[in-house]
Amino acid sequence: MPGGLFTDLYELNMAASYLRRSMTAAATFSLFVRRLPANRGFLIAAGLDDCLAFLETFSFADDELAWLRHTQGYDGQMVEAFRRLRFTGDVWAVPEGTPVFAGEPLLELTAPIPEAQLAETAMLNHVTFQTSIATKAARCVLAAAGARLVDFSFRRTQGIESGIAAARASAIAGFAATSNTEAARRYDLEAAGTMAHSFIEAFDSEAHAFTAFAEDFPGKTTFLVDTYDTAGGVRAAIEVAARLRLAGPVAVRLDSGDLLEQALLARRLLDEAGLDQAKIFASGGLDEYAIAGLTAAGAPIDAYGVGTKMGVSADAPYLDTAYKLTEYDGRPVMKLSAGKVTLPGTKQVHRCPDGDVICLRDEPLPPGARSLLIPVMRRGRRIIPAEPVTAARQRCAEGLAELPPAARDLHAPEPVPVTISDALANAQQTLTRQLRLRSAY
Amino acid sequence: MPGGLFTDLYELNMAASYLRRSMTAAATFSLFVRRLPANRGFLIAAGLDDCLAFLETFSFADDELAWLRHTQGYDGQMVEAFRRLRFTGDVWAVPEGTPVFAGEPLLELTAPIPEAQLAETAMLNHVTFQTSIATKAARCVLAAAGARLVDFSFRRTQGIESGIAAARASAIAGFAATSNTEAARRYDLEAAGTMAHSFIEAFDSEAHAFTAFAEDFPGKTTFLVDTYDTAGGVRAAIEVAARLRLAGPVAVRLDSGDLLEQALLARRLLDEAGLDQAKIFASGGLDEYAIAGLTAAGAPIDAYGVGTKMGVSADAPYLDTAYKLTEYDGRPVMKLSAGKVTLPGTKQVHRCPDGDVICLRDEPLPPGARSLLIPVMRRGRRIIPAEPVTAARQRCAEGLAELPPAARDLHAPEPVPVTISDALANAQQTLTRQLRLRSAY
Repeated sequence: MPGGLFTDLYELNMAASYLRRSMTAAATFSLFVRRLPANRGFLIAAGLDDCLAFLETFSFADDELAWLRHTQGYDGQMVEAFRRLRFTGDVWAVPEGTPVFAGEPLLELTAPIPEAQLAETAMLNHVTFQTSIATKAARCVLAAAGARLVDFSFRRTQGIESGIAAARASAIAGFAATSNTEAARRYDLEAAGTMAHSFIEAFDSEAHAFTAFAEDFPGKTTFLVDTYDTAGGVRAAIEVAARLRLAGPVAVRLDSGDLLEQALLARRLLDEAGLDQAKIFASGGLDEYAIAGLTAAGAPIDAYGVGTKMGVSADAPYLDTAYKLTEYDGRPVMKLSAGKVTLPGTKQVHRCPDGDVICLRDEPLPPGARSLLIPVMRRGRRIIPAEPVTAARQRCAEGLAELPPAARDLHAPEPVPVTISDALANAQQTLTRQLRLRSAY
Repeated sequence: MPGGLFTDLYELNMAASYLRRSMTAAATFSLFVRRLPANRGFLIAAGLDDCLAFLETFSFADDELAWLRHTQGYDGQMVEAFRRLRFTGDVWAVPEGTPVFAGEPLLELTAPIPEAQLAETAMLNHVTFQTSIATKAARCVLAAAGARLVDFSFRRTQGIESGIAAARASAIAGFAATSNTEAARRYDLEAAGTMAHSFIEAFDSEAHAFTAFAEDFPGKTTFLVDTYDTAGGVRAAIEVAARLRLAGPVAVRLDSGDLLEQALLARRLLDEAGLDQAKIFASGGLDEYAIAGLTAAGAPIDAYGVGTKMGVSADAPYLDTAYKLTEYDGRPVMKLSAGKVTLPGTKQVHRCPDGDVICLRDEPLPPGARSLLIPVMRRGRRIIPAEPVTAARQRCAEGLAELPPAARDLHAPEPVPVTISDALANAQQTLTRQLRLRSAY
């Protein structure tokens, strides 16, 4: 997939202007989140794999070049320059699944400035979206306190590819399975799913529908019990399970109404029938707040299907991300716009016992600290292989466990403190003085 | 693109169960929005074109079938049945760009039940997402009161394909242009864009950057003036425009701080320099509420770049959509779950002078009314050609103009009243009685 046009027109304008003037010195751009959304005490970094895939395959297809020539007025020489363009730069980044905080560079890209500029839109898009979803999903994992979570978001994500990326991001965050079969195939995730209300309605009774499903999928006997009336549905499930002598443990799924009340009712009916091994699966408009409420109330729910609100990160559907030039041709640069001041130079983040420190990339690592950014691409090629989702999931689980409880709080979290090293603060102050002096003339 | 796996596992389970039992009678599913989100007085229907493209090309690829066989345990006979499956049904739908309201069917699909079931996820996904964005964008158009709007959302939409769909949805809603070059190419939209702060910073002064850009793009001289200090930036733009004797009208772009204050300052400086034809372009965190505020304050802004908050529909990033079985094998069906009762049978919406009426599909059209749903696909083939974005845009502009002012209000709208015809109400009551009676046994 070429994708040279997966960008904004101004990136192409700027790249053309740079190329025409032979301005191809190395530029470093730093990608970071300016502020955490309300209620967020941490973010889970995600999107890097798609960023690297974009950079590795970056080029313009013939039809893209023809469009630039004939509708955008680029001359033949410029179109040829675009045709030859590939991404030849270096990337340092925070691995997927790592908890991160506001202001910290998540990705720093160094490349000839036309290439670095053309990558902006895709880098921001992948990291903003996937970090939003991984973060929301991680909050659901914290709320579920060990109950199994299944991604049910595909039908209401913002597009088809978005649903596949949401399944992957939620798997990184610790979801056990997804209903999304393309995501399961593509990323080797567990696929999960049972039946819809329409299946029940297509038969002339609930009991007939359950019987048919149990005969066809003897190992997957989760019965949706709330199509007409939950108590009746649970009784029908019990009756079918007994009549067919189902081998595996039966489960019932609740998808409407007061889930706590319905779960208590279902649990009681199942236990009375001797089915104390039967599982209860709940879904329907869930997010971390609803799950935390059910957990706190002691709802007898073994697994949750979490859909729309996770898949679009409903209460924070975007992040205030920025991709800022911090060095050009060996010279640190920064922006002074109101409220948008940036940190100059190439940087690193040291995760220390008492908080994170953003510093210049070559500062020594203090004792007990570790570096968050690692080199992931050199001269346009990955220098670490693409990792399976399980590796990022493991990193996320460890990172969440390490977070102080106040940062994990769902309602009024306190993020880990992030400070700036003395060397970086000095570099910023010196450059601010130089720029203010220059713009005064 | 096959895409047989662009679905949820339970759809495949149900389809397999239907196929195994030769349950292939026609099913009608109705897609509608249960409730409007807060602040929404209308929705703009969108997503139909992608729905029809999905249905027309629906099939399973070899690698998808292999995955079903080897990881999901479907037997060889079922995999062969999936291999032969195509979409052979009929679709009625509301054309894109039409204002619609809660409860109204936006799409009704009639097909052998396995096919209709497998289409659910994609139908819901495209309509939910694209209708959300078209609606948000239409609200921006109303707020801008005639000022030009440009889609700047690509960098923070929920994925790359999502950004391309958002550009198209905002064009339907009345946006004049997009920064997204792939969307512009694919849908023949106007591409727009100038320069980023990084371009200014890559030169040793703002004036040098402006000069370079004006030389390279003499017809596109919009200068970004807030990198260091807006007044200085506007003066530099004026100076460069005068020195280069730029032919076309100059424009300045403001992207930070208090946009009203900055626009008034820029207007004054431009007017004092005799550049009263110069345009002012504003961007930065805008949505319909901010634009309406600037419009009301009389901000001298000629055009707005609207990004993230439109591209993800930030205050309502999803809709409460449903895709419900309403008829199977000639028998109307409905669901009685708490809060999720559905309307049985195949339906139509009559737009009447005093409100919309949801009715059975074959009810006669009252005088002065028009039908919203039209047949768009028969036996798996489109029966109307894919329309250009301009046609849906025209429909949207006319539909918005027709809405009562109370429905167009941004803060406390009153949607157009939607009622149910007597015949449909009778059908629903009769079926409710039958189902309650049946589930009592």
